[in-house]
Amino acid sequence: MEIDILTLFPEIALAPLGESIIKRAREAGIVAIRAHNLRDWATDKHRRTDDYLCGGGQGMLMLPGPLFDAIGELKRPDTTVILMTPQGKPFKQAVARELAEKGGHLLIVCGHYEGVDHRVIEQLIDLELSIGDYVLTNGAIAAAVVTDAIVRLLPGALGDARSPEDESFSDPKMLEAPAYTKPADFRGLKVPEVLLSGHHAKITEWKKQKALERTRANRPDLLED
Amino acid sequence: MEIDILTLFPEIALAPLGESIIKRAREAGIVAIRAHNLRDWATDKHRRTDDYLCGGGQGMLMLPGPLFDAIGELKRPDTTVILMTPQGKPFKQAVARELAEKGGHLLIVCGHYEGVDHRVIEQLIDLELSIGDYVLTNGAIAAAVVTDAIVRLLPGALGDARSPEDESFSDPKMLEAPAYTKPADFRGLKVPEVLLSGHHAKITEWKKQKALERTRANRPDLLED
Repeated sequence: MEIDILTLFPEIALAPLGESIIKRAREAGIVAIRAHNLRDWATDKHRRTDDYLCGGGQGMLMLPGPLFDAIGELKRPDTTVILMTPQGKPFKQAVARELAEKGGHLLIVCGHYEGVDHRVIEQLIDLELSIGDYVLTNGAIAAAVVTDAIVRLLPGALGDARSPEDESFSDPKMLEAPAYTKPADFRGLKVPEVLLSGHHAKITEWKKQKALERTRANRPDLLED
Repeated sequence: MEIDILTLFPEIALAPLGESIIKRAREAGIVAIRAHNLRDWATDKHRRTDDYLCGGGQGMLMLPGPLFDAIGELKRPDTTVILMTPQGKPFKQAVARELAEKGGHLLIVCGHYEGVDHRVIEQLIDLELSIGDYVLTNGAIAAAVVTDAIVRLLPGALGDARSPEDESFSDPKMLEAPAYTKPADFRGLKVPEVLLSGHHAKITEWKKQKALERTRANRPDLLED
């Protein structure tokens, strides 16, 4: 898989993707990730990429010119062009899985300031994505989030020892049960006895019950659907 | 405001917070952000921070020892201790605003692997947060997202020219209308005439209508509540 990220802050997008699992996936050739500075496609002498909104409103909007030229240059026949924007469809694990399975080439365009000129969205964007209902200083962090979630699902990315199954949102209707590791008695705080019993049926039942309790407490919305 | 991030990957957490708006907020003394490597509180000779799950299950869990010691050392009387985990409550703009207004000291603990030993959550965590319904390779990117969203809301962080009002999720029930900037005619693609009319009542009406259309298309869930 190949992922190109188009942003005013290539360092913000790339830095979180240079360590641990994603670093190893890149070194193993499972994915190639590149970031490009949109300013390289600016044409005026100030390398301007933004301007005021038509019809008034606070803040600045990204100009169509540099985006049309940059996307035109980076796009290929197999490219899915994604725009990171709070106006987008919610990015969820199912979307990550879909994009990981599709493979090919992703071009992730990062929104900055008040967003991008709508002509860019209408003409060039295949998919508008939002990582959540909050506002960030720039879309580069959001691009890193999406890239991280997709790349860890690529075959081989997590190594032999782990698989992406059996985790939150593989079953989207339930959170995971509380989990415990050693020691069984930590400064007087004990691991629930059932987990040390070796009785698999009882453990499964306990996990199911606790997962339900936790989902009720933290994410009642998951149980409503 | 002061924010400490506790993680196995301090670079992943800090790198996205070293540029642009957040960089300037840090330099202006609006916020102090530090990242700490949890491994510094590991006590065995391999600096181990994880172990197998009690009762079986894939993957590794973060040990209670290093987390109890690190949180104990970094916590102060005014600290809110946050754990980044897919099991947490959804992080939304309202939560960002609340934490920005509260100010004081945040200690953001990053989940890694399959999560943290539940005794840590029960004893030490004030708030479990999830940035979205997807799985990341580690919680450090999530900590950067939360930090970015909070810091930009601190007084002075966006500078004099902008304010966090008048943007998506300030009114949580509606996305923003499409926006346009110069030129009015870009390679034959035109800005809607109403936006160039100077007729403010008509512009307001157009924006309202388009915001509704976009919300219906991308986020029908916002209109349901």
